[in-house]
Amino acid sequence: MNPTHIEHIGLAVKNLEESIRYWETIFGLKCYRVEEVADQKVRTAFFRVGATKIELLESTDPAGPIGKFIEKRGEGMHHIAFAVNDVKEALADATEKNIAVIDQVPRSGAEGLEIAFLDPRATYGVLTELCSTPQSEK
Amino acid sequence: MNPTHIEHIGLAVKNLEESIRYWETIFGLKCYRVEEVADQKVRTAFFRVGATKIELLESTDPAGPIGKFIEKRGEGMHHIAFAVNDVKEALADATEKNIAVIDQVPRSGAEGLEIAFLDPRATYGVLTELCSTPQSEK
Repeated sequence: MNPTHIEHIGLAVKNLEESIRYWETIFGLKCYRVEEVADQKVRTAFFRVGATKIELLESTDPAGPIGKFIEKRGEGMHHIAFAVNDVKEALADATEKNIAVIDQVPRSGAEGLEIAFLDPRATYGVLTELCSTPQSEK
Repeated sequence: MNPTHIEHIGLAVKNLEESIRYWETIFGLKCYRVEEVADQKVRTAFFRVGATKIELLESTDPAGPIGKFIEKRGEGMHHIAFAVNDVKEALADATEKNIAVIDQVPRSGAEGLEIAFLDPRATYGVLTELCSTPQSEK
């Protein structure tokens, strides 16, 4: 799989604007993008810190994945995304090594990346995303 | 505060050796150090992925912070550590901005770093560590 770096860390938040203010005023990070991902029922906000991004996730629907996460566990760390060369190859590699996956094939995520999630029951409780720039854009 | 990058991500695990094998065989990362931090009642293992480290944390005492975390929430993401220039200054900055802290003054963490934690009740549920190379070693 050999990830090159941590692409982003996803944080579940109740109120996107309030959390954006926190990361801007306390950490001095700059929110460079707010994007709704209808498919995932979230609004997202992005900050850069070194080569990694912080991705805030606010639910737009209590029945969506972030809404259910917050109801069960409260706000906080939600997932880690690793940058890999090719998500499709990484998924094939994981499957070959008997690691269960949530997404059998890559799908489109925020910021135009190809993404896929591994099953946290196979990853010692760490919800793990793999992402890569679409091959057509390389 | 202006962190330069994510220094590491801390993951709570039940069995250090089993989790080391997972990150080595599935992700192709190499564990370069195993260290016991008696003060925190943990054994830790480190991997590099880009500029960031993955820090696995196995409890050596059920009454320690990782033991209690796993009992309550299970294995998974535990904290994010941001690299800052000077933890002492960053703590003063946080306090001035009314962000509650767990450590009033920096203490020694794994890998010889100076570290301090912010109070997760003040950070939207994200257990947040600040760390820097001791000034004497710069």
